[in-house]
Amino acid sequence: MRTFKLTLAYDGTNYVGWQRQLNGLSIQQVMEEAFAPLVGGTPPTVAGAGRTDAGAHAIGQIASVNADIDLSTIAVQRALNVRLPEDVRVLVVDDASPGFHARFHARGKTYRYRMVTTPVMSPFDRHYAWHSPEPKRIEPMREAAAMLVGRHDFASFQARGSFVRETVRTIHSLDLHEREDGVVFECSGDGFLRHMVRSMVGTLAEIGTGLRSPAAIRDMLDARDRRAGGANAPAHGLTLVSVVY
Amino acid sequence: MRTFKLTLAYDGTNYVGWQRQLNGLSIQQVMEEAFAPLVGGTPPTVAGAGRTDAGAHAIGQIASVNADIDLSTIAVQRALNVRLPEDVRVLVVDDASPGFHARFHARGKTYRYRMVTTPVMSPFDRHYAWHSPEPKRIEPMREAAAMLVGRHDFASFQARGSFVRETVRTIHSLDLHEREDGVVFECSGDGFLRHMVRSMVGTLAEIGTGLRSPAAIRDMLDARDRRAGGANAPAHGLTLVSVVY
Repeated sequence: MRTFKLTLAYDGTNYVGWQRQLNGLSIQQVMEEAFAPLVGGTPPTVAGAGRTDAGAHAIGQIASVNADIDLSTIAVQRALNVRLPEDVRVLVVDDASPGFHARFHARGKTYRYRMVTTPVMSPFDRHYAWHSPEPKRIEPMREAAAMLVGRHDFASFQARGSFVRETVRTIHSLDLHEREDGVVFECSGDGFLRHMVRSMVGTLAEIGTGLRSPAAIRDMLDARDRRAGGANAPAHGLTLVSVVY
Repeated sequence: MRTFKLTLAYDGTNYVGWQRQLNGLSIQQVMEEAFAPLVGGTPPTVAGAGRTDAGAHAIGQIASVNADIDLSTIAVQRALNVRLPEDVRVLVVDDASPGFHARFHARGKTYRYRMVTTPVMSPFDRHYAWHSPEPKRIEPMREAAAMLVGRHDFASFQARGSFVRETVRTIHSLDLHEREDGVVFECSGDGFLRHMVRSMVGTLAEIGTGLRSPAAIRDMLDARDRRAGGANAPAHGLTLVSVVY
């Protein structure tokens, strides 16, 4: 059995997210179906490093697959891209060590979130950035972001209804880059709870508009309760940039 | 009667082009329908400076409208954007001199064309650039582009079946910018025949791959016959950037 490590880019606009769902088409499903003819039948499981939300994107998602395929990695890449829809592309195929698992072995991930604050949203950004035109001050957002960096219990920043036992994560960096049309958030950490980036960005936006003060971050972290955090920023502003092993 | 000058951006992916057609939705139609409630009934004609093709885009299309609307220009802009689909946006509304016509009074236009030459196409560019992965040499393309600049009869570079009497146009500039993933063509001229930019780019691409020599441009211009020109590059790589008056 061979183990493959795939690097993927996808426009998540038309998908229910990474993970297979009964209610619509997932990235995982189209990936697995693209593998089917290569293994001559039942498609193998394709494990993604990050289970991106419906409408969220990736430029460097990593996936692992165990499959008996007697082709070069470049031939596997070409065969997959021929079968995949144009909004999902395999950028690289590598042979990995036996037992490599894209999710369980990930040591860290980087996400990017784009927020556009201009009064009129560019039609070309509508699926790739959050349009939040209320004026925002960058300095309070940066001050608050600095308080999120480090090892904390992020229970207040995970999806409602999550029952993950261990909610302590380490954020290595959370940088805000000012752009002509808004702000790009770039966040690296050892792991992310469900909706964690989106709830951090939503909370920072509330701090940018003056709805909350930067100091509120400390109370939210201490509360360990999702109701203490800010609203989720929408999924379509989010892109999984890279995964480290 | 007031005359408005509108600056528009649109993602042309889901449209049959600027001009009203029987076989699908046009940008002109959604613009006119957005005006209907402002004039209390029959929508006015919205004239566009450039009749962009199906799938082609704009970041600075100019349109003119004659209508009796007793609102500030900013209120007109907001009312239109509320009614328009998200892939069409009114960037600016100005009052224009009576009689102003976006197409008849245009003195020049600038188009941009993006060609991506990487082996794998980014899913985020699939509707906004032509994927043409054959290796291309930039210098022969630049040499050929220089021969297109100036006042010429462009009959060999217009759509088949066009019956435009006057096919002489002046190209002010046709610049090729190398990017990490391909080439961006930027072309300014006093006017453009139907498919003119797309056939120029398609011909330059054939020169880039070595299928034709740069010197062939002279023969094509002299031939004054569409059959002498190269293939059209696809519409979705094309963006109308700006219009001058």
